[in-house]
Amino acid sequence: MTNFESIDAHIEENLESNLDELSRLCAIPSIAAQNIGLEECAKVVADMLAARGFKTQILPTSGAPVVYAERAGKGDKTLLIYNHYDVQPPEPLDLWDSPPFEATRRNGKIFARGISDDKGHFVGRLLALDALLAQEDELPCTIKFVLEGGEEIGSPDMPEFVKNHVDLLAADACIWEFGGVNHEDVPQQIMGMRGICYVELSVERLTMDVHSGLGGSVFPNAAWRLVWALASLKGPDERIRIPGHYDNVVDPSQRDRELASALPYEGDDYKERYGVDEFLGGVSGNPDFYLQEAMQPTCTICGLDSGYQGPGTKTVQPAKALAKVDFRLVPNQTPEEVLENLRVHLDAEGFGDVQIKYLGGEAPGRTDPDDPFVDLVVKAAEEVYGMKQTKVPMSGGSGPNHAFLHYLDLPIATCGMGYPGNQVHAPNENIRIDLYVKAAKHMARIIRDFAAA
Amino acid sequence: MTNFESIDAHIEENLESNLDELSRLCAIPSIAAQNIGLEECAKVVADMLAARGFKTQILPTSGAPVVYAERAGKGDKTLLIYNHYDVQPPEPLDLWDSPPFEATRRNGKIFARGISDDKGHFVGRLLALDALLAQEDELPCTIKFVLEGGEEIGSPDMPEFVKNHVDLLAADACIWEFGGVNHEDVPQQIMGMRGICYVELSVERLTMDVHSGLGGSVFPNAAWRLVWALASLKGPDERIRIPGHYDNVVDPSQRDRELASALPYEGDDYKERYGVDEFLGGVSGNPDFYLQEAMQPTCTICGLDSGYQGPGTKTVQPAKALAKVDFRLVPNQTPEEVLENLRVHLDAEGFGDVQIKYLGGEAPGRTDPDDPFVDLVVKAAEEVYGMKQTKVPMSGGSGPNHAFLHYLDLPIATCGMGYPGNQVHAPNENIRIDLYVKAAKHMARIIRDFAAA
Repeated sequence: MTNFESIDAHIEENLESNLDELSRLCAIPSIAAQNIGLEECAKVVADMLAARGFKTQILPTSGAPVVYAERAGKGDKTLLIYNHYDVQPPEPLDLWDSPPFEATRRNGKIFARGISDDKGHFVGRLLALDALLAQEDELPCTIKFVLEGGEEIGSPDMPEFVKNHVDLLAADACIWEFGGVNHEDVPQQIMGMRGICYVELSVERLTMDVHSGLGGSVFPNAAWRLVWALASLKGPDERIRIPGHYDNVVDPSQRDRELASALPYEGDDYKERYGVDEFLGGVSGNPDFYLQEAMQPTCTICGLDSGYQGPGTKTVQPAKALAKVDFRLVPNQTPEEVLENLRVHLDAEGFGDVQIKYLGGEAPGRTDPDDPFVDLVVKAAEEVYGMKQTKVPMSGGSGPNHAFLHYLDLPIATCGMGYPGNQVHAPNENIRIDLYVKAAKHMARIIRDFAAA
Repeated sequence: MTNFESIDAHIEENLESNLDELSRLCAIPSIAAQNIGLEECAKVVADMLAARGFKTQILPTSGAPVVYAERAGKGDKTLLIYNHYDVQPPEPLDLWDSPPFEATRRNGKIFARGISDDKGHFVGRLLALDALLAQEDELPCTIKFVLEGGEEIGSPDMPEFVKNHVDLLAADACIWEFGGVNHEDVPQQIMGMRGICYVELSVERLTMDVHSGLGGSVFPNAAWRLVWALASLKGPDERIRIPGHYDNVVDPSQRDRELASALPYEGDDYKERYGVDEFLGGVSGNPDFYLQEAMQPTCTICGLDSGYQGPGTKTVQPAKALAKVDFRLVPNQTPEEVLENLRVHLDAEGFGDVQIKYLGGEAPGRTDPDDPFVDLVVKAAEEVYGMKQTKVPMSGGSGPNHAFLHYLDLPIATCGMGYPGNQVHAPNENIRIDLYVKAAKHMARIIRDFAAA
């Protein structure tokens, strides 16, 4: 049996040198959206794993390469760890208090673009592995790492990659890229993610703008066409009107409702943070708030663009109009069916002039909340955090977990250092060092317990 | 009786020196939207009139000053001439083939910002007056000029100005700022203008944007709220749904339909110019096309602005959304009633969160198509153009004519040098010199016939 006193001591003693490694990784601006620094970062990641005795491969995709690394362990179990080495763009730069690609420590936190999402999670796993390897020459189980470089642009290559590397990636369980505590510092276990189907709807009916005094009542107006098409998708009752949209939806189970009831209510915190008086439908308190927030399909207008947007007036009828629309999906919806139903619906409603451009999508994916691996990860947190993780059935966000669940047929659990103030995707992204250490200690225990199970 | 051979000869002989005056006026960038050069231009305009023996006044308003000028004539008749000395902004500058404030001659045309709208019309009137004054020391009737400096921003001060200067402006008839020929070079008499009510509708429901994975189903979405509010204003049937909106509408008369039937059909020309396959409701041919184009109320979305509008995806729920909406009005609608009905409607439909900002408006105004003054102006064209003017009941555009009609109780007719290629409000604004000369000759005849009537 592993001695956790000395493992924890090793983690604490080696924290600073490990954080130096993290700083070096954060210094590489590996920005998927701008196709910057991805090859270089993949190489550094592979080197960091090779330094721990992993056999590494840098595998090409149609976009950024995937880093794969494997180190055999004592038992016959295999744990797959998914992370990503790409980061969000740092803009707007003027809102950062320190340079985004220079990891900077202030008040027990370290600030840098990508330090929480997701480089800190990756390097924190190494801190746990280093401690385990300091105890014994061999890992207690086989560990496989897979790190992609396109997560921040919707992991366009991952479903295909996983499908084509089923044998390489084969494992008994998987630890996902993130995890962490809620606004009360209670550790959470997130057991799934919604899917997404992101489209651009556009209308172009004239070759140029027309004076509104001339065109208002005889020329088709692209902005009106778009408004009417959008209004046909969803009304103020928030029910999505595309026929078939809910056909494959699996409603939250009784177990999901139990878990949702046990979640702390975040609504009051949100109300203050975003200046909201009331939530849609007047929802308040769990389980209802959580179920509505994270476990139902959504249709969100993310942007509208047409005609004149400056100060004052311009009497113009726009030739073009455009909307960005984001559908969040729940099991068992797929982006493909949403796209198909959307086209059929728009045509049926007389909006054949509305063009659909598919900008990316991911299917939803969940792990059974009572899967033994999930329980093992939840329990392993207790010694570190002084409490078990709270089980959260799904995140409202999206990621490429569906491909792992679907092609590799394994349970996925989370372990990480996230917290509500970590500013991921925003200026001043940061990690809390105390939570970083806890996540490493949790990770070491997960590996031990998983190998022993 | 005036000798028109010598008047026409005088117009032709003095054309070049008159065009030099026009060039000097065009060199002053009197841009109302940017509040540039207005006082300077008003002074030059007043000086040009004083040089013709007019008593001039520069009268303040809350915006640009109004130039008023008067010269008594022989008879007891008074003709009021309305023009404006402000111009549209010249942007985008890179699309001009010559500098916008340097009048430049090419191929029988002169190019400059404001040369057609409306400085050429003003200076062309002077060419006519100079010719009349070369014949006799006295004008055949009293002439009053009123030139404003805010027409291009919706004449915000004119209704109040006219109301407060009823005695000063009192006249028997009025010549409006524009006029001209259609795409077949047939001269047109335009006997009215639609009104306008221009509003900005905005929704702001959050203090900042929210990640769409989080906010999609619990936070109010400003873009959705705006889309639904807009869709409540008008549907694809083009009928405006605001209760009371049509209550005061006077439908086109039998006489309007007769006049509309006689108008050349411009639809084929529009289709080619704007790349349109079919007009709204499949309308084709006159009178239907014209009546739909220019004589019915409209509700036009001129612009939409919300959230993310860049390339690719951003998964964000926008905190704010904004639409620019332009209502064109027909007699006897008013901007005030539209505003009031709009607020009541939005509130009744549950859109109390949609803010209305009034950006300006003008009431519609018409002169009786069979008014003797109109017939006089139409007939006076015959000698110059080789044909009478075609009577167009209304322009689809808007202007401050309502205040003149309402407070001064006089008929308004048009006389001008406009033509479909004059690019007013656009780069390369221009006049055709042949039409400039014709408009001056027409103006001289109008003054003669009006004084004699």
